[in-house]
Amino acid sequence: MNVAQRSCPLCQPDRETLLWQGPQARVVLIKDSPYAGYCRVIWQAHVAEMTDLSVGERRQLMDIVFAVEAALRRALLPTKINLASLGNQVAHLHWHVIPRHADDATFPDAIWAAPRREQPPRALDLGALRQAMAAAIGAIHQAS
Amino acid sequence: MNVAQRSCPLCQPDRETLLWQGPQARVVLIKDSPYAGYCRVIWQAHVAEMTDLSVGERRQLMDIVFAVEAALRRALLPTKINLASLGNQVAHLHWHVIPRHADDATFPDAIWAAPRREQPPRALDLGALRQAMAAAIGAIHQAS
Repeated sequence: MNVAQRSCPLCQPDRETLLWQGPQARVVLIKDSPYAGYCRVIWQAHVAEMTDLSVGERRQLMDIVFAVEAALRRALLPTKINLASLGNQVAHLHWHVIPRHADDATFPDAIWAAPRREQPPRALDLGALRQAMAAAIGAIHQAS
Repeated sequence: MNVAQRSCPLCQPDRETLLWQGPQARVVLIKDSPYAGYCRVIWQAHVAEMTDLSVGERRQLMDIVFAVEAALRRALLPTKINLASLGNQVAHLHWHVIPRHADDATFPDAIWAAPRREQPPRALDLGALRQAMAAAIGAIHQAS
């Protein structure tokens, strides 16, 4: 493990709420987020950009991102799903998968924009989400 | 064309700066953006979410997104590439591919956050970018 990895919060995670884990990627729930169901799909290796991965690795990662999207749509019926790979602060490849609702604090802007209104509380059934996630990720190989 | 499509700015584009176009997707440059090289990859059909596409269509679209990322990295040497599919305002599938530099107005936040500083001007060689884009998109089928 090199210096960048030793100081990387995604290489050295601290109390993640793991929803699914495989050898190359994991899915965690951002548990304190006001955006209920906000997930992060994290590539296990310390790599910065999608185009640093091989074509096969990119597909593996995106298949998981889209499975998470499918599970969130099924479990939460959001107005829209937002997907983003930014990594400006932590240059370790990870995808934000964010269920958006028309009444959430920043809608229809990105969640990083200034809030337009107060965030309404929204319940999350973690058991149902885990089940939807396992089903969607389990279905990846049938679909492709 | 239904009502949603008739009022959709991505179905009815107005003066786009087209960098590449295929039957299923096109790549446009956001010409007035202070983020030089900011591109949008637009799915031609009026569809909202990645998981509304078939697995094959998702791969076609992501292959183009990653080709645009590769071209922008080659042409502009950005600090980081940001990828995002939001669609809260225009629910017609499109990807933002944004070259970020450590001195840009919002870095290391998302470009939708409040600016931290003035945006420095940055030149863009549109000819070189078009060439890098054509090469990267042309290389998709060799790589996969």
